[in-house]
This record gives sequence, C-alpha cells and structure tokens, in this order.
Amino acid sequence: MTWKRVATAAVLIPFVVGIVLWGSTAIVALAVGLVTMLALFEYFALGEAIGHRAYRFWTATCALVLIYVQWRTASEHRYYVLGAKLTALNGGKWLPGAVSPESPEAVFFLFVLGIAALTLATKRPLVEGLSAAGISASGLILVAFPLSYTIRIHGTPQGPLVLLFVLVIVWVSDTVAYFVGRSIGKHPFAPLLSPQKTWEGAIGGFLGSLAVALMFARWEHISVAYVLGMGAAGNVAGQVGDLLESAYKRSAGIKDSGSILPGHGGVLDRIDALILAIPVVWYYWVLIYSPKS
Amino acid sequence: MTWKRVATAAVLIPFVVGIVLWGSTAIVALAVGLVTMLALFEYFALGEAIGHRAYRFWTATCALVLIYVQWRTASEHRYYVLGAKLTALNGGKWLPGAVSPESPEAVFFLFVLGIAALTLATKRPLVEGLSAAGISASGLILVAFPLSYTIRIHGTPQGPLVLLFVLVIVWVSDTVAYFVGRSIGKHPFAPLLSPQKTWEGAIGGFLGSLAVALMFARWEHISVAYVLGMGAAGNVAGQVGDLLESAYKRSAGIKDSGSILPGHGGVLDRIDALILAIPVVWYYWVLIYSPKS
Repeated sequence: MTWKRVATAAVLIPFVVGIVLWGSTAIVALAVGLVTMLALFEYFALGEAIGHRAYRFWTATCALVLIYVQWRTASEHRYYVLGAKLTALNGGKWLPGAVSPESPEAVFFLFVLGIAALTLATKRPLVEGLSAAGISASGLILVAFPLSYTIRIHGTPQGPLVLLFVLVIVWVSDTVAYFVGRSIGKHPFAPLLSPQKTWEGAIGGFLGSLAVALMFARWEHISVAYVLGMGAAGNVAGQVGDLLESAYKRSAGIKDSGSILPGHGGVLDRIDALILAIPVVWYYWVLIYSPKS
Repeated sequence: MTWKRVATAAVLIPFVVGIVLWGSTAIVALAVGLVTMLALFEYFALGEAIGHRAYRFWTATCALVLIYVQWRTASEHRYYVLGAKLTALNGGKWLPGAVSPESPEAVFFLFVLGIAALTLATKRPLVEGLSAAGISASGLILVAFPLSYTIRIHGTPQGPLVLLFVLVIVWVSDTVAYFVGRSIGKHPFAPLLSPQKTWEGAIGGFLGSLAVALMFARWEHISVAYVLGMGAAGNVAGQVGDLLESAYKRSAGIKDSGSILPGHGGVLDRIDALILAIPVVWYYWVLIYSPKS
C-alpha cells in the first residue's frame, strides 16, 4: 500500500461519499455512467489482448441506455405506473406480460439487434464474429449490468445509506485483509489468481465487514441478523468479484487493467469487488430484507 | 430443396402449428425449452470449434429458468400483480424500482453469479476465462433470450395467431426466396456469408411476407397498415437472423450447425430467422401495435 495508493484513496473517498449521501439519484447515475464507461473499456482492452475485439461503441451505448433505464426505474414509481401506462398503450385492454420500453430486458434486446446489424455490416474478418459477440455481450452483462444496480439502490428510501454500507464494507474488508494478510497471513487463498492473498486476510476482511454491519445496525436501528446477513453476502460477493477480475486479467495475460488511478491500477481493478457486491446487496435488500424502518 | 428437406418440413410443420394453435402456453414453453436447448448446444459447438468453451450446463440452466420466468410473466397478470406482491413483501411500504425475483433481469444476474463462481472453481486453464464468459453470455443473450419471447407472444390474447403469423411469414419468405432466387436470381445478396442468396430472392421473400400479412389483416380484421408493418419488420429481422447465423458459422469455420433435422442441417440453421423475427414482432405488437380487436 504505497503512499500513492493512500493519497488517491484520500482524495476519492470523500468525493464518493459526498455524492452518495448528498447527491441526487441523477447525479449518482451520471457518476455510475462515467465509471461504467471506464470499466467497460478496460474490460474490452483485456479482450483485445487475446484478440477479442468488442463492438465497443455499441456496447457502451447500450450500457448508457441501461443506466438511464435503471435511473428511470429507480426514480419513478415504476411498478405502480406500469399498469396504467400499458393500459393506456393498449387502448384500455388488458395485455398480460406486457413490457415497458424502459426495462433492462428491452435494453438487452436492443443490444442483440445492434450486434446482429454490426456483425453483418462490419468490415472485420468474418472469423471475428463469435469472439466479438462474446466479449461485447460479456462486457454488458458482467460489467455494466451489475454496476447499474448502484442507481437502483440509491433510488430507494434509505438507499444512500445502503449504498454507503456496501462501499464501506468493501473498503474496510480490503484494508483489513491487507494488514492482516501482511502481518499474520500464511495460507495462500488463491495462489494462481492472486498470489499475495491469504486465508487469514480473507477471513479478517470478512470479519471487518461484519463489524461494519454491526455498527450500521446499531446506528440505523435495523435488525442485527438482517444486516449481518447483508454484510456477509456483500463481503463474499466482493471477494469473489475481486478474484474474478484477477482471473480475467490472467486470462488476458495482463497485470493491471489500466493505470488511470495512481497506485490503484485501473478503474476495473478498483471497483471489481463492487461489481458483484452492489447487486448482491441490492437483491438481498429487496428480496430478503424488507425495509420496515 | 431436397425431398428430405420437404419431408422433414411436412412432418414438423403440422406438429408446430398444432402446438401453437391448440397447445396451452405451458406446452409452448416446454417446446421452446427443448428447441432452445438444442439451439444453445449447437451455438456452443460453434464456439468450441474455435476454442471457446462455454459453461454449458450453467448457461443451459439459466436459459431454462429464463423460459420459466417468461412463462410466469406471460401467464400471470404480472404487471398488475407486481405492485401488490412487492407491497406485501415490503410490509406495506412503498419501494420504488423494486424487482420481482421472477423477471428476466433477475435471471441475468443469477447467470452472472454462476459465471463468477464457475470461473473461480473451474479446473480449466486460466487463459480460457474470458472466452468462456463470452461464449456463455452471448449464447444466453443472443440465442436463448430472444427465443424466450415465443412464450410471451403466445400468452397474450390473440397470441397463438400472432405466433402463427411470425412462423408463416418466415416460412413463406424462405420458400419464396428459394424459388425466386433459383429461377430469376442474378445479383448476389451476401456473397461472403451465403453465396446462394440473391437480391431477387430476398425481395421475393419480403413480398411474400407482405402478402401473408395482407391475408392475415383481412382474416383477423386488423388495420392493414399495422399488420404490413409487422410483416415487414418480422421479415427483415428474419433475414438478418438468417445471415447472422451464417456469419457465426463462418466465424467457426463450420458449414451446418448440426445434423439433427434431415435435409435442414441443425436446429440453429432452421430457427435462425425466428430467433430475431419472434422478439421483433413481439416488441412491435406490444409497443407499436395496440391490440384493439
């Protein structure tokens, strides 16, 4: 943990916390859009290193549309409006299973149409078709889509606090894992993917997240069991996300996904844990924990 | 068009039409599940030919879950139920942008989680990580996801007829294109992808679809302009889908995607046009045309 890394964190953390706590969901969506673009292009660079050339512009466009849709879903009372909207569309007649043009599924289908058109219109060698479809689709679904839940979290009542919760458990886990691993770490955790990680560090990070969850539960007067579960789920998802990005870097034969953040490598290196932790906490929050505050 | 091809069609067509017109949406979903599995594994075989090994079992599982979810969405009055359901979940409190666990977006995130776990747990060489994610994600989003709209179409009022409409415009377009191309075809349509296709054939197929649309409009007493638009959109999507699959076969260096259907090649060869035509007609039907019958 070089001074560069600490200095970068010291500048970025207050900025991120400020946006999360005091920014509107629209501001958060803009920030997510920026981070997603950077992360997506770093992911595409990983693919490029092994000859998989994405349809970058189209995938990025669909990622931004997805972010817009997630913002609309978060900021409108969508699931009450939906029925009325579609009823109007259909001249007052009932249509089961109808779809809003502003839903993630519609964006995914828009993406499919564009990939089809690009595959036929491109001047690239035909042999690239499958790998271009693959790296584009996986970039949209593995990077942009999970990140877009940041906006959905932020748009709920208590959303800014829940989003802060995810950020803090991931940051604390990262830091605790680093210091515990350095001081008492002996048993390698994932020697092939990330040689410096140890079981001691991973468990320390996990316990660190639980400690944050305990504080959060006391602070917000939410049931301890639920928040511990949320912290545990978010932490495991974060550690998996971290390893997953290491796996993709190894797959591409690249050490850092980028160099935009001094001391931290690329944006993808920095947010890899969040890419999975954020949607996992969102689904936990919506499906398992029921806000009753 | 060998006798084998005609014989296979003569057996399959009445069977498919019977299921569409007289089967329940659950039966249609089962049939779609079967066809999707066959098509998906043929797509994976294309990837395998260039060394992209999918997480077959997991992707197929998610495809089946997606089909189940589309069936639930089609058969329940989902968008009315949704609000009530989620309200109950949240102890009567409003939660904007909430999600049902039975939505395509939730299935896509389930897929992401599994890909993450498999990428870390697999014994495959690390270098395969990116291409495995790519071929798995593109199989789900480019093959299984568009096909699953068959169920959504079938579940609407008039759905069986609309589904039959898509099938017939694609079949007629295919047949007319073949005979027109053979008799007067001169100008190659997509020489690199499909050397036998001609502009004459493509235009003939397009006009054939419009003729079907005219008959359908008269038969069902629906506005001619809407149905012509639906026929045109479905036909263009179908021809694009056909070429797209040719592009992927070229990308993999393979002639037929399979050999399960005598005279027709694989399942993917047979349904390539439907993969795009079905969701395009669905979105046209729901978003542009409003059933007022």
